[in-house]
Amino acid sequence: MSDRKQFRDLVDPEVAHDAIDSLDLAPEPETVPLSEARGRVLAERVDADLDVPGFDRATVDGYAVRGRDTFGADEADPVTLDLVGTVHAGEEPDVPIGEGEAVEISTGAVMPDDADAVVMVERTEIDGERVRVRTAVAPGDNVMVAGSDVAAGARALGPGTRLTARDIGLLSALGRDAVPVRGRPKIGIVSTGDELVRPGEELNSARGEIYDVNSYTIAAGVEEAGGEAVLYPHAGDDYDEMERLLLEAADECDLVLSSGSTSASAVDVIYRVVEERGELLLHGVAVKPGKPMLIGELGDSAYVGLPGYPVSALTIFRTFVAPAIREAAGLPEPQTATARGRMAVRERYSEGRLRLMPAGLVTDSDGETLVYPVDKGSGATTSLVEADGVVAVDPDTEYLDQGEEVDVQLFSPDVRAPTLLAVGEDDPALSRILDALERPRFLPVGSREGLRRLSNSVPDVAVVAGPTERDVETVDLGGWEREWGLVVPDGNPDAVDGLSDLIDRDLAFVNRGRDAGLRASLDAALSDLADERGASLADLTESIRGFEAGTKGFESPARAVARGEADAGLGLRATAEKLGLTFVPVGVEDVRVRANPDRVEKPGVRELEATLAETDVYESLPGYERA
Amino acid sequence: MSDRKQFRDLVDPEVAHDAIDSLDLAPEPETVPLSEARGRVLAERVDADLDVPGFDRATVDGYAVRGRDTFGADEADPVTLDLVGTVHAGEEPDVPIGEGEAVEISTGAVMPDDADAVVMVERTEIDGERVRVRTAVAPGDNVMVAGSDVAAGARALGPGTRLTARDIGLLSALGRDAVPVRGRPKIGIVSTGDELVRPGEELNSARGEIYDVNSYTIAAGVEEAGGEAVLYPHAGDDYDEMERLLLEAADECDLVLSSGSTSASAVDVIYRVVEERGELLLHGVAVKPGKPMLIGELGDSAYVGLPGYPVSALTIFRTFVAPAIREAAGLPEPQTATARGRMAVRERYSEGRLRLMPAGLVTDSDGETLVYPVDKGSGATTSLVEADGVVAVDPDTEYLDQGEEVDVQLFSPDVRAPTLLAVGEDDPALSRILDALERPRFLPVGSREGLRRLSNSVPDVAVVAGPTERDVETVDLGGWEREWGLVVPDGNPDAVDGLSDLIDRDLAFVNRGRDAGLRASLDAALSDLADERGASLADLTESIRGFEAGTKGFESPARAVARGEADAGLGLRATAEKLGLTFVPVGVEDVRVRANPDRVEKPGVRELEATLAETDVYESLPGYERA
Repeated sequence: MSDRKQFRDLVDPEVAHDAIDSLDLAPEPETVPLSEARGRVLAERVDADLDVPGFDRATVDGYAVRGRDTFGADEADPVTLDLVGTVHAGEEPDVPIGEGEAVEISTGAVMPDDADAVVMVERTEIDGERVRVRTAVAPGDNVMVAGSDVAAGARALGPGTRLTARDIGLLSALGRDAVPVRGRPKIGIVSTGDELVRPGEELNSARGEIYDVNSYTIAAGVEEAGGEAVLYPHAGDDYDEMERLLLEAADECDLVLSSGSTSASAVDVIYRVVEERGELLLHGVAVKPGKPMLIGELGDSAYVGLPGYPVSALTIFRTFVAPAIREAAGLPEPQTATARGRMAVRERYSEGRLRLMPAGLVTDSDGETLVYPVDKGSGATTSLVEADGVVAVDPDTEYLDQGEEVDVQLFSPDVRAPTLLAVGEDDPALSRILDALERPRFLPVGSREGLRRLSNSVPDVAVVAGPTERDVETVDLGGWEREWGLVVPDGNPDAVDGLSDLIDRDLAFVNRGRDAGLRASLDAALSDLADERGASLADLTESIRGFEAGTKGFESPARAVARGEADAGLGLRATAEKLGLTFVPVGVEDVRVRANPDRVEKPGVRELEATLAETDVYESLPGYERA
Repeated sequence: MSDRKQFRDLVDPEVAHDAIDSLDLAPEPETVPLSEARGRVLAERVDADLDVPGFDRATVDGYAVRGRDTFGADEADPVTLDLVGTVHAGEEPDVPIGEGEAVEISTGAVMPDDADAVVMVERTEIDGERVRVRTAVAPGDNVMVAGSDVAAGARALGPGTRLTARDIGLLSALGRDAVPVRGRPKIGIVSTGDELVRPGEELNSARGEIYDVNSYTIAAGVEEAGGEAVLYPHAGDDYDEMERLLLEAADECDLVLSSGSTSASAVDVIYRVVEERGELLLHGVAVKPGKPMLIGELGDSAYVGLPGYPVSALTIFRTFVAPAIREAAGLPEPQTATARGRMAVRERYSEGRLRLMPAGLVTDSDGETLVYPVDKGSGATTSLVEADGVVAVDPDTEYLDQGEEVDVQLFSPDVRAPTLLAVGEDDPALSRILDALERPRFLPVGSREGLRRLSNSVPDVAVVAGPTERDVETVDLGGWEREWGLVVPDGNPDAVDGLSDLIDRDLAFVNRGRDAGLRASLDAALSDLADERGASLADLTESIRGFEAGTKGFESPARAVARGEADAGLGLRATAEKLGLTFVPVGVEDVRVRANPDRVEKPGVRELEATLAETDVYESLPGYERA
């Protein structure tokens, strides 16, 4: 087995695929009740062991007869037969049929002995104890012969069939209430890192704690691939604890996945456990993201170590691990999981290894798909939802040109391009307007950066607040006004009255970042104040404590005030009221939704324009007005 | 509401869609744990209520510094800073940074107060209590600022988002361990008909009992559409029992579906219950199959009555009910659920109403999709698995021409054409050979009918046993020999010796149908016997009791013998041994797999040819040999 080991520095991705294929993840088959069989994969062929139907069955309401007794009958010259009984569905016929006789029969009922055809009731009439038959029937007419749907002994469903409603229908007809199916591979997930906290628990940011993203993300990916995920407690950097956890998972599962920490020491501990208690086949794959992948065996289980950053972990999981889980579960590769589009921008590479580039999709007004790179750094969890799939870029590729056709491996087959790609200023009214749209995507990059991106022709629209420097040709779709100013603690304990207080008094202030429209409005107001005072803008801003630092979210300054970390923050009246703080008004700024002129006919942009014209979201937001 | 009632004889399908849309199936939203949220649909927008990350975070291993202290540093002229502490991931930094100071920091750790950049460890070296920095860093370098991934207050996910692994990743990052999702509509299923038996229970065929196909099939369809299925006990034709069951289901569910019986009396009882305890909006839709559809309300629940035959019930469910369930569950219409292909044969219509024609897919050697009608009668459950979708044929269409392009609405988006379409003689060796193929479909229509269909160019191959009359140009792919004869009770109590016993003694015989190769071999052997005896073939066959009747499956005659219903049956040595019966040999017949000459290059046909050349299935089948 040691010839499977691959310890050269970084192995080719194909070698990693082969190493994972060499592991055995397939669990034992199991038997499940029919009611739980949907989506499962048959472990073996199912042959019929009874006839369907199990008897010669009338397919219409009418009269069971011997066909030869009706020969020559027609409208002009009916045949009259003696009525000797009745049989309904679910009853056993109590009389056979003799020459010249008929039995009244319901759809689905058993044919009486010696009857071989049924005359539809519409072609008959009753005459006392006799029935007049106005058509001839041949033996077999209106009868479903025993076994004609499925005959006992016939092959009903083959091994590997993924059971849908239709297959379940056939299994029901065969009377099967339980079926042998492929087992779902059990995948143990061990997240590592002392800084991880489970969602729902209390987070201590001062200690650098973060929520564990990989456990639930990978668990969902495992289930999507047809496996069963088992979450184990977090492991820290302690060797004994890690060993105990990994061996417990290996004992209970078909595959153990570790992930979660980016810390070198935790990875090092895992490495040692797998080396000592199992076998490490391979570490390090020439792919970005995901270089530090481990592949090996631990006890009777397979083992794969995923990188720590969520986007890297999920990308490596999808590329290397999910296909192996599907294979073990007997599931086919998902269909139509690829979208073809043209690069919306030029993108440079010089990686020397396979690059799995997260990519977003956007459609132009003709419905053509454009592809743009989503590169927020592997540490960003928002890349997960801002990308639709990955483009595999060859190690030798130096750049992808604008307009070049690429294939995007979608994160799932039902991924569709958003109906609208918007960028720019984050805003509570905007959030509500987006809620009314079909499938929008909004990237809160701020007004300045939003306008820059719009000029690159990737997004459909930019949401721009406050004064702007940049002159970009756009089509205005509508907008609103919002009241901005200083957010101070409830009751305004420092009696802050306006911007002058920030300059003239020693107050701790929290600003927004430079891309924010709010910041641009603040700069403009301070500029006016500088003029008034005959001072320079720099003089003023230097005397504001905290002016240079910027925060990322529109609520961030107010939240810092709410936490008692600052005396005043830049923000909106709406935010102050939402958080129970006091608002000191400074001004009113415009927020405009500006469209890429090439996209105004796109359905998603029209939908946005119509929504902007009709929405009443401003009524419930303090300091807001349509404009 | 009475203007919604539609009691004209047969309403337009659009009217039925509108009537179902007018019903309210949408359940209340609910909150589910994150671990169960995959595939669910967000009921409301989720805003971030914390920053991600919650602190300024080092993105590399190295030294936290004040960027301005490194200005001008390079390889030739490093800057030396005092090392004042260490901070790992998951720890709270215990020292701030002063001028000219640095703190050792791990990836993911909290930046110490007043530090604004990190120098990668690779660009430094330790010198006792000091660190030599050989590069300049700007404020923000190698730091992920608090809230830069997601800022508190930002819109994270919109209402209507169907949660995938990626969304679950983002929710994890926000610390959410439970999410508000759209409720899954609860769909009650009431099967009706005294003749129905649940799979797994004992079936009394003499009474015309059949297994309940619709309950599990429709339940699986409900789950595929995002609903939750609840099965209720069967209802017979009794008014009070039906009323009690339907009202119980209406009380507990958002929608009640009845189905199962084809009996007019059960439908009549349901009709009365809905009229008296609810409101019937519509009955009878101009669509085939499915004319007898009911739409109404029952208590606070919606009600739809499906036709009784399984294929009709599932087709009507998919066409009219599943979209309403998806809508109520907040799920989008499934993508790519349509395949386009050319009609393989000409098909006539003169329906006067919308026809939902079950259709199968087959690919030709160029990979082009051909579409053929699957019409086994609505009562056949095998139509469920022999069709891949339906073609909606307009009421005015008189025929679909061979070669005409049609759209097939696939039964599910992941339906794919079988890799091989085989027809002809059913055979136990064939069943095993099919098990080895990727995605075969086999229709056991018998040798004669199989050859006829092959000449129509729909199937890829026909499996043909025994002598054939028809001369069809085919390519032989391989085959085997099988020993056939008479299957008699264990121990051969009547001391049957051969065909002569059937003619000369009064034995009850069970034959195969005329399409079976076994029957053709029997006819040939009897013909030889007639020549020997100087008699006509008709003389001989007339003296065999049961000769004219034919059974549907290759095991059927032997099974009749096993049940004690006959003294001898036409069959195979392999069947006799499988069922524990005695075999009286008569002859050996060839089974050949014959391909449509146009399809020999098709991958599925090549796979079959290779399997035929290699298989060893004959070794374990008595009376079999490769030929």
